[in-house]
Amino acid sequence: MDALPGTLGTSASLALRLGQAIFSVASLLFMCLDVPFYSYTAFCFLVTVMGLVMAWSLTLVMVDAFSVLIKRPARQPGIISVVVLGDWVLSFLSLAASCSTASVVDYLLCHSSPFCDGTLCTRYQLSATMAFLSWSLILASALFNLWLLAIL
Amino acid sequence: MDALPGTLGTSASLALRLGQAIFSVASLLFMCLDVPFYSYTAFCFLVTVMGLVMAWSLTLVMVDAFSVLIKRPARQPGIISVVVLGDWVLSFLSLAASCSTASVVDYLLCHSSPFCDGTLCTRYQLSATMAFLSWSLILASALFNLWLLAIL
Repeated sequence: MDALPGTLGTSASLALRLGQAIFSVASLLFMCLDVPFYSYTAFCFLVTVMGLVMAWSLTLVMVDAFSVLIKRPARQPGIISVVVLGDWVLSFLSLAASCSTASVVDYLLCHSSPFCDGTLCTRYQLSATMAFLSWSLILASALFNLWLLAIL
Repeated sequence: MDALPGTLGTSASLALRLGQAIFSVASLLFMCLDVPFYSYTAFCFLVTVMGLVMAWSLTLVMVDAFSVLIKRPARQPGIISVVVLGDWVLSFLSLAASCSTASVVDYLLCHSSPFCDGTLCTRYQLSATMAFLSWSLILASALFNLWLLAIL
């Protein structure tokens, strides 16, 4: 069977995982670097979830890179199931985190909170955007791997 | 082929759709009845999405009830595809709306906003909870129908 593009162990999957890792790191940097975020539940949630996404994506980047190098994509249903489950859980969590952050930032902006001065809110917005982009790539990975699981 | 429980046109699907409709109506009632919600983007988003979910679920309640009555579940891949697409889009939207509402309510509570007095914030919280329950039922419907589409 030919490898379905985007599934575990293909170069398209490697690109998707790299994108997820880059966006989640960017989201973490915009949120954490020199910015107070501890007093907002939504922002702490975003940082937690993006940390998880970063760890997950970097692990799978290594798996994919190894599979691409030895030219043998993984096809064991057990492994694919674990990856699909992780992808779906993280996709829901990252969607929830990015929407929570975006709505709190919107509230802060609309009610011109004293907390939201200068470039601070722009950084929170950028962080939420990066988390959203990361979500879209995780969803793509999850759909490709679910499709593979269905036809295996 | 036997009807897979939970897919379009079965009595389990009818129960799921009824649950979705009931939870979305409850969410709308908690949010809208005698409560100011217009000045919050997240709350307006919740009302919009729950309105859509209510319309979608009530339509499919009728389809399911008709199928159960005539004892012929729908099996056309075209119809199932449309239902799966709608379910997935609405499941993402309702998750996003419930998390946005929950995070804004949490912000209002934590920073003891003057807006959040008495039972007002409890009602917003209940509304977000109902939206979340509605999301979980939509997700169940979406998964059952996606599975049916894969095996058709």
